[in-house]
Amino acid sequence: MKIQNLIGTRDFYPKDMRLQNYIFSAWRKAAEKFGYEEVDAPMLESADLWKSKGELSEQMYSFMDKGDREVAIRPEFTPSLARMVAQKQKELQKPLRWYGIIRCWRYERPQTGRLREFFQFNIDCLGAESMKADAEVIATTVEILKQLKITPKEAYVRISNKKVLMELLKDIGVEDIESVLKIIDKKDKLSDNDFENLLKAAYKMNDEMVFGIKDILNITSIADLEKLKLNDETRKAVQELKDLFLYLDTYEAKDYCELDLSIIRGLDYYTGTVFEVFDRSRKFRAIAGGGRYENLVADFGGEKCPGVGLGMGDVVLQKFLEEKGKLPDLKKDVDYYVAPISDKVYAQALEISQKLRAKGNVEIDLVGRSLKKQMDYANSIGAKKVVIVGEKDLESNQVTVKNMETGKEEKQPLASL
Amino acid sequence: MKIQNLIGTRDFYPKDMRLQNYIFSAWRKAAEKFGYEEVDAPMLESADLWKSKGELSEQMYSFMDKGDREVAIRPEFTPSLARMVAQKQKELQKPLRWYGIIRCWRYERPQTGRLREFFQFNIDCLGAESMKADAEVIATTVEILKQLKITPKEAYVRISNKKVLMELLKDIGVEDIESVLKIIDKKDKLSDNDFENLLKAAYKMNDEMVFGIKDILNITSIADLEKLKLNDETRKAVQELKDLFLYLDTYEAKDYCELDLSIIRGLDYYTGTVFEVFDRSRKFRAIAGGGRYENLVADFGGEKCPGVGLGMGDVVLQKFLEEKGKLPDLKKDVDYYVAPISDKVYAQALEISQKLRAKGNVEIDLVGRSLKKQMDYANSIGAKKVVIVGEKDLESNQVTVKNMETGKEEKQPLASL
Repeated sequence: MKIQNLIGTRDFYPKDMRLQNYIFSAWRKAAEKFGYEEVDAPMLESADLWKSKGELSEQMYSFMDKGDREVAIRPEFTPSLARMVAQKQKELQKPLRWYGIIRCWRYERPQTGRLREFFQFNIDCLGAESMKADAEVIATTVEILKQLKITPKEAYVRISNKKVLMELLKDIGVEDIESVLKIIDKKDKLSDNDFENLLKAAYKMNDEMVFGIKDILNITSIADLEKLKLNDETRKAVQELKDLFLYLDTYEAKDYCELDLSIIRGLDYYTGTVFEVFDRSRKFRAIAGGGRYENLVADFGGEKCPGVGLGMGDVVLQKFLEEKGKLPDLKKDVDYYVAPISDKVYAQALEISQKLRAKGNVEIDLVGRSLKKQMDYANSIGAKKVVIVGEKDLESNQVTVKNMETGKEEKQPLASL
Repeated sequence: MKIQNLIGTRDFYPKDMRLQNYIFSAWRKAAEKFGYEEVDAPMLESADLWKSKGELSEQMYSFMDKGDREVAIRPEFTPSLARMVAQKQKELQKPLRWYGIIRCWRYERPQTGRLREFFQFNIDCLGAESMKADAEVIATTVEILKQLKITPKEAYVRISNKKVLMELLKDIGVEDIESVLKIIDKKDKLSDNDFENLLKAAYKMNDEMVFGIKDILNITSIADLEKLKLNDETRKAVQELKDLFLYLDTYEAKDYCELDLSIIRGLDYYTGTVFEVFDRSRKFRAIAGGGRYENLVADFGGEKCPGVGLGMGDVVLQKFLEEKGKLPDLKKDVDYYVAPISDKVYAQALEISQKLRAKGNVEIDLVGRSLKKQMDYANSIGAKKVVIVGEKDLESNQVTVKNMETGKEEKQPLASL
């Protein structure tokens, strides 16, 4: 029987898994540096969890289980997280700093940077109203880029505040804000001309209003924002952005961060800060995205609890790292390869291998290869040292240890191993 | 909206995840010590993969996807592993030493030690015919027990060889071997009387044959096996057991290992060595099980390739560790908690926190708690040190560092952090 893995999915052979773990480990390390703790939820939940709120229910793998419940494989983590918080809200100490490496499925057309099975790194900080939390989440995002050796010239975080944009649009007389936001959300994929025409055609805007919108989107500094005539509401929202950028400066994250009012984030639930990580060349879709939300936990049966979150998928990230030559050439992590020169000394070699395991990872021959073939094999797996166990050496209670990096060989007494 | 997680599933809050990661890390460490490399496959595959061979297709979560393929969430890893090996058999260097921490789903009645979603640790060594491989897999299993501080008095490995048992049964005249194996497989769950009666009733055996079977199952040493009159085939199989136990002795694993010919393992594909890990009190079902197989890869379209494997679920293991008091009281891993005494010094405190991240995991206040409440909070999360940032201290370029283990407080110059 020949069966292939499903389209849009990946097998993780050891070399693939090493790269996957390299990314997972950068995620973990950054999150834990900032005091975030790992969480997870089941892969399968009641389909209602996503149907009621999520925008992804179309792409869900949903079905009836044997007990006649409509269940779905999670297309994202956030609703599960909100459910978990709502279920234990009283006993959980605020702020919650949670992260997860979340396996998800979405039924979409597989293409570059998009697969049906993927992992999404999520961090969420819940229970803090201050921009300190937004800055922390963005600083953690920047820390991930640093861990992966991505410079500010290669990727950056585009940051906005939905309230600022919405107030400014209102100020120039835009009435159907939601619809204009939807067009702005697509701006990156449109030519300048198409963007203008779309605005004009759909909402019968005059040129002045279109130029007004474009002027707003061209603002790239807080200073320029402050020069505008702002009402109280807008001034408060601009202050949020100002605080945020001040904190980011202290985090040494400023080089990675840019104000960009065209960032909308499709998801309805963001209410303030929104941000997306992009490669500078803009060859790939967003590497990550997130923002501040107010109603998520309440939407899932809990008490209202503000939060800030980030999601970063593994697929685009890995493609980007690959293109930039930033994926390391990872070898198997073997400290010692123990090479018995014949089966006669196998038991002693085994004993030696077991002793060496107190010091690290140890492999021993299982298939009776010749010494030459064992040396080739040890070399191919990147073993750091080879311990050659021979009859003569054993008679004088020693072995030959070859350092595979320097090529140096020396006799060592058994007792010293 | 109030939605609960599905029955038979778990939410992993931080404290649950810490315990889960404690177990995962013991699995990883043991596997990597023996040179095993991590692999994984998609959670969802064509349902045919399990229907053709597995014994678990009844318990599968299977359904038609949006592209009209019958797909299933994996109830186990082995068929995916065999598919992966078959797909790249030519380029993969033997022996393959693979491990995986595999998320699985089975539709079963949830009960103690059995959930619908669980993780199964798998190790497989492929391409080695010698008992050296069987010994290595069992030694890795024992290493896991050691990592988890389980003594030989608390749990042990029951080891058999299917060929030995089958030959011995043939020798005393048993004809329907398969059926007798099925009854022996249930022996642990039956009273002595019921076991005898089941054998007698189902196969019209005389007392002599029943006692013969019981005598075989009572054999607990290789020496006793060798005392029997053995044909060549049986002698070869007994020699396998003898080699295996000799190697296990060298691995310092002997205390954990016992010969037990009643071990069958339900799964058809085992052809030689079979083993199961049990708690000595026999309160729980098997903690782990595995054995040698010959035809697995060929069954999935590859060339014949012998292998030895182990599977260990997280649910029984965790229950067992809990009962034995072997689950550690794990705290959040925070090296420094930075406590600004007021918002005026927040920016400086943030700068200090970011500097300290070069040394470890650092948390800082986000919600404006009083110093007293911050100290309580830092204590509750198990922070190792608290760095108190106050205005006066800052004037003389210093902070107060409290060691939370000793309770000692001292001033430290900023430059020294």
